[in-house]
Amino acid sequence: MLINGKSETRIEANDRGLQFGDGLFETIAVKDGAPCLWRRHMERLLGGCSRLGIKPPDIHQLRQEVDREIGKAGRGVIKIIITRGPGQRGYRPQAESQPSRIISFSDEPSFPEQVHQRGIVARLCSTRLGWNPALAGLKHLNRLEQVLARDEWNDPSIHEGLMMDAAGRVIEGTSSNLFVVQDEKLYTPDLSRCGVAGVMQGRVIEIAEELDIPVIITDISLQDLWVADGLFLTNSLIGIWPIRELSGQEFSLDALPRNLIDAVQERGYSLS
Amino acid sequence: MLINGKSETRIEANDRGLQFGDGLFETIAVKDGAPCLWRRHMERLLGGCSRLGIKPPDIHQLRQEVDREIGKAGRGVIKIIITRGPGQRGYRPQAESQPSRIISFSDEPSFPEQVHQRGIVARLCSTRLGWNPALAGLKHLNRLEQVLARDEWNDPSIHEGLMMDAAGRVIEGTSSNLFVVQDEKLYTPDLSRCGVAGVMQGRVIEIAEELDIPVIITDISLQDLWVADGLFLTNSLIGIWPIRELSGQEFSLDALPRNLIDAVQERGYSLS
Repeated sequence: MLINGKSETRIEANDRGLQFGDGLFETIAVKDGAPCLWRRHMERLLGGCSRLGIKPPDIHQLRQEVDREIGKAGRGVIKIIITRGPGQRGYRPQAESQPSRIISFSDEPSFPEQVHQRGIVARLCSTRLGWNPALAGLKHLNRLEQVLARDEWNDPSIHEGLMMDAAGRVIEGTSSNLFVVQDEKLYTPDLSRCGVAGVMQGRVIEIAEELDIPVIITDISLQDLWVADGLFLTNSLIGIWPIRELSGQEFSLDALPRNLIDAVQERGYSLS
Repeated sequence: MLINGKSETRIEANDRGLQFGDGLFETIAVKDGAPCLWRRHMERLLGGCSRLGIKPPDIHQLRQEVDREIGKAGRGVIKIIITRGPGQRGYRPQAESQPSRIISFSDEPSFPEQVHQRGIVARLCSTRLGWNPALAGLKHLNRLEQVLARDEWNDPSIHEGLMMDAAGRVIEGTSSNLFVVQDEKLYTPDLSRCGVAGVMQGRVIEIAEELDIPVIITDISLQDLWVADGLFLTNSLIGIWPIRELSGQEFSLDALPRNLIDAVQERGYSLS
């Protein structure tokens, strides 16, 4: 782990990242020794810094530190946390705050076998996502909703939980974005009230458009899910995961756009 | 600062308090060398641990550490943070997590002169509070909404900002609870959707009831504020602060229950 460029595992406890969750993070797939979709992850991170008023990190320096932390590893995961930095008591950010950078490498997680062919089992979570347009889309450090939702099940055969907002709209998985396939079109939830704008979600939308598959960003209800031709999840580590079962209801994988799934596996993890 | 009983200023960066804001805190007034309203703060902390599924701290040990951290200081502030403890990557809490305890003492903040007689100036914040019944009432570490709201103004003559929920209900100050005085009754917002259930708010309700002042917990609209006879704020450090001006509109302090304000100053900071 590198903290502010030094090999270190501890951080000052007065850091606002701990005190208030006052910061952002990125979880990045590492393949062939390099962080995938780097430009997109950095765009989201800098956009988040701008919206939270956190001094943006030097991306060139950050990349050097990421490369140091990856070292000789071929595959794995890089997590970057940027906080507003150490602070005094009280919510008010101090203009002179120096952001903290925490970069850690971990091994590639193990995924279900043949997941792209067989799909995964998902459930509906009862923990809801609160609306906050000021925070919507950001991958910030206030993640108690996801923690509570992920704590709702222990069954290792269930791989993800879908979360709704207060009005019952389906928004996303605890750590993934959702796509609904209907009449050969893709629908993915509007994230302007809550949810995380996934880097892989963006990449999948881009590849779908290259393949002339229409993508519609809209509100999605539970009813929309039950009558869907198919469902899949995306995130930076998993790429695309088809859903074969949701809270007991089976979903066919036949209607999923196979060319999209193959294209995302082949070129979804590009370097920029 | 004491971290897990040791004199220390740093914490493991894989602590879930930093990674996800997965924890709780209490900010406690210290007077005459002792933490005020200790039992109430501990009740809220333990209630929060129960709701988040965090292993509760040993309160006897916690008190010993708080007393050590206060040392010979007469007055000041104790902040206690309890996190779910160090963890691995991913939102899922691990059953074997050992919670972290972070206890820090700081000097008493400086308050406006003659604040109980003259009142303070407040403003309305545009940052809204998201609804989340699963988190409502808790003093948890996901505080970006308060950080953004407190960052809305720099004017040192403004002492607090009021926050509304997504539906425009007035909920609380960035770090205080709100009471509305109307027809010799007190109204304070329903915190079942969002907001922090303040320890001093609870103490003020209790003292009001002892003084036969009716207290009604209900939804409060902006309109309710503009026509109010008076407004005041509470928190564990300030006790009661009358509001003399809100976003340019002046409020009389004459309708405020003087006996309540005096009683809270005299016995609001009891030891239990």
